[in-house]
Amino acid sequence: MFGGTELAALRAIVGDDGILQGASVERAYDCDAYTVDRSSPTAIALPSTTEQVSQLVQWCNSRNVAFTARGAGTGLSGGAMPALGGLVISTKRLNQILVIDIAGWRLLAQAGVVNAHVSRAVAAHGLHFAPDPSSQSVSTIGGNIAENSGGPHTLKYGVTAPHVLGCKLVLPNGEIVSIDRHEDSPDLLSLVIGAEGLLGIVTEAWLRLTPVPERVETVLISFSTIRDATETVAAIIGAGILPAALELMDRRILDAVRQAFGLEFPEATQSMLLVECDGDPVECKREIEQVFELAKAPIEARLAQSEEQRASFWMARKKGIGAMGRLAPTIVTHDGVIPPSKLPEMLEFVYEVAEQHQVGVANLFHAGDGNLHPCFYFDDREPGAVERVVNAGEAIMRRCIELGGSLTGEHGIGIEKLDMMPLMFSEADLEMQGWVRDAFNPTNLCNPCKVIPNQKGCIEHRRRWRGAAT
Amino acid sequence: MFGGTELAALRAIVGDDGILQGASVERAYDCDAYTVDRSSPTAIALPSTTEQVSQLVQWCNSRNVAFTARGAGTGLSGGAMPALGGLVISTKRLNQILVIDIAGWRLLAQAGVVNAHVSRAVAAHGLHFAPDPSSQSVSTIGGNIAENSGGPHTLKYGVTAPHVLGCKLVLPNGEIVSIDRHEDSPDLLSLVIGAEGLLGIVTEAWLRLTPVPERVETVLISFSTIRDATETVAAIIGAGILPAALELMDRRILDAVRQAFGLEFPEATQSMLLVECDGDPVECKREIEQVFELAKAPIEARLAQSEEQRASFWMARKKGIGAMGRLAPTIVTHDGVIPPSKLPEMLEFVYEVAEQHQVGVANLFHAGDGNLHPCFYFDDREPGAVERVVNAGEAIMRRCIELGGSLTGEHGIGIEKLDMMPLMFSEADLEMQGWVRDAFNPTNLCNPCKVIPNQKGCIEHRRRWRGAAT
Repeated sequence: MFGGTELAALRAIVGDDGILQGASVERAYDCDAYTVDRSSPTAIALPSTTEQVSQLVQWCNSRNVAFTARGAGTGLSGGAMPALGGLVISTKRLNQILVIDIAGWRLLAQAGVVNAHVSRAVAAHGLHFAPDPSSQSVSTIGGNIAENSGGPHTLKYGVTAPHVLGCKLVLPNGEIVSIDRHEDSPDLLSLVIGAEGLLGIVTEAWLRLTPVPERVETVLISFSTIRDATETVAAIIGAGILPAALELMDRRILDAVRQAFGLEFPEATQSMLLVECDGDPVECKREIEQVFELAKAPIEARLAQSEEQRASFWMARKKGIGAMGRLAPTIVTHDGVIPPSKLPEMLEFVYEVAEQHQVGVANLFHAGDGNLHPCFYFDDREPGAVERVVNAGEAIMRRCIELGGSLTGEHGIGIEKLDMMPLMFSEADLEMQGWVRDAFNPTNLCNPCKVIPNQKGCIEHRRRWRGAAT
Repeated sequence: MFGGTELAALRAIVGDDGILQGASVERAYDCDAYTVDRSSPTAIALPSTTEQVSQLVQWCNSRNVAFTARGAGTGLSGGAMPALGGLVISTKRLNQILVIDIAGWRLLAQAGVVNAHVSRAVAAHGLHFAPDPSSQSVSTIGGNIAENSGGPHTLKYGVTAPHVLGCKLVLPNGEIVSIDRHEDSPDLLSLVIGAEGLLGIVTEAWLRLTPVPERVETVLISFSTIRDATETVAAIIGAGILPAALELMDRRILDAVRQAFGLEFPEATQSMLLVECDGDPVECKREIEQVFELAKAPIEARLAQSEEQRASFWMARKKGIGAMGRLAPTIVTHDGVIPPSKLPEMLEFVYEVAEQHQVGVANLFHAGDGNLHPCFYFDDREPGAVERVVNAGEAIMRRCIELGGSLTGEHGIGIEKLDMMPLMFSEADLEMQGWVRDAFNPTNLCNPCKVIPNQKGCIEHRRRWRGAAT
């Protein structure tokens, strides 16, 4: 906690309109899109240059104030949840694309640039930024880098990391460094990408642009059971086809999207698969034909005939979680990974767990890379609801690890999965992760109490459920 | 330095025949394939399990003895040069392939397994290990990981890092950890790969296997000037073709290979380009046709008609440096990176610098990714020769950086390029790199005095040139 004189010092750095504070701010910024744990900051700073970020961080160090970087706040594991009474350093004003190098297929963006704006800026040149988290219309490059975000096209094009060529980083001590990808020295860039803001604040990044594929073909297939869909996924992957995207949605998601956006589908549908192939037109057509052949007992399979129809197919997938939000006051979207061959049994387990814990669950996910996203919907004002959701989530995560998978595919550990880390990592593994955090961030003022479990002095920053605490 | 009782303790860990020492050992292990700097160890240990490596490292910690891991010793920047009087931990007996998972396209190998043996072990199943350093017939997986080695096929398939799925690492304090690639947490695996042995000793690694391409087409093109070849490279890359390999050799390399292995080429040849395309047969044929069209004023262009002929084309490239070894007592192969469009001017600069410094130079390199390998040949017993070679190398590295490139594409910093790091990195950058080293390796006993410049207590471990010191 800090007050009047400190706020004046912060205003001297970022200008009078660059500091937000007060009760409504404390409330608005107490969590990101993971709403189960909450913790209020004292103020929000809105720097517009790397130097201002550096000065803010130096100030925080001088006053022993914890700080947390924040982009659009769309993170799903609480990585941008503030430290209690700390400073939130927002990238909202770091929203400029600084260099567009068309010939070099790269672009320099500030951290607060919205993901979709990058592709829009180079669309006329037949290029795009490949990572496409479902939040891409609002989420920022800085947040994508912090969480090493994936998206539907991760299956073919990879997560964020391979699309970042370098960055400018404000270290936890306030120093500014540049990190490039050097093929042959310790890869600090890969370390920073996905570090969930523990190693400093990325303020600028060179992004790799990718040619827009020559042809894109998109199919939406309806199945009368969910198992037919998961077995189709296994058949496609098993046949050695690598679609650009391979997304599964269950009936509850489809119902929500129908209600919200008027999506149409046959009444017997229990699941849908969205398959997209891209690249060379001949190859692309051949792959789509194979997908039609491999589909197990489809009720209906439609090939998009226009860009508009393709967009409408994608709407079901991209707006699915948003549509769920209309069905219940609170949703928590989980993130776990399993080998794609285990999908059929894993999905059955998810429904069982939800039933046991009396929580609603809907599923839509990146089926091709085994990245599950069970979406729990509930009312967090109902006594016991939050605990039941947390317990159901933990049961699912445990099973992911038992099946040879991992805790997170793209949403991060953040605050949500902190206590599950020992399920996956040995004591020595966790100790080594701590070494890296301590090397960059020895005071732990930079996004404290995230990712690495059992840190000292962290209890106050955790487990402030709305249901429990307010 | 250590002696009798200490050697007995080491023998108790690895057995009597697991410790080598004496004058001939000190001489044989005083450098790797970078022979300019040398420093003799006290003994060599040959562990055959991860646990033995861990015990050796613990012993080193207890006695304050520096240790350096060593594979086949083919490194070209001195990464495996021992600390003076220290212990070399050889991976020679860690030579087992532990698991072959054909369905999962992966394989678990101990660190001392030779690169080429991995591909050989799975060839019958149509798979291979894609990273192919020119040393692959002897260099080991552990060394490839330490240096994040590239090779001719790096252009299309990437360096070692993307082909490693996880590893077992003995930390500098002797603890054993497992590191997997988790898409979404700090990427410690990428940190360890290419860390040149500063962060611990990799003892086992899960390697990603890649299907052998359906078709491979290889062309060898002769040019009457070197500029025609470099401009052809720029034209191929500019046309958006991504060959599997694109290698350039100059006349001096060709002469050496002709002398050593009977390579034939038209007398007017001043340079040759080896271009390989692979993948889908139709696509592959189309690419090769484009390459023929783009070749600028070729004297001769030959398409390999058989696997034998393809191997003979590759022989010139893969044995080129070895052949140079017959022409002079000492060779030093440099490694720098520039944007491929700068190749023509850079290559002219390399010849100029060599002439100014009165050193012989031959060039063969990964032209497609702008990864130069000027090879200086000289007699290190001649007074002043070593200094001239070092100065010429530095001039070339400076120009690489001026042209927007970097100090190393695949050979590492090691001991060779230590003093050039500040050309490329700011003080804050280097400090940050030091943090990571210190986090894992706070005592600096694990491969001391490499990569990070201006370390304390390092003078004795450096600059022991054969010409100067013995």
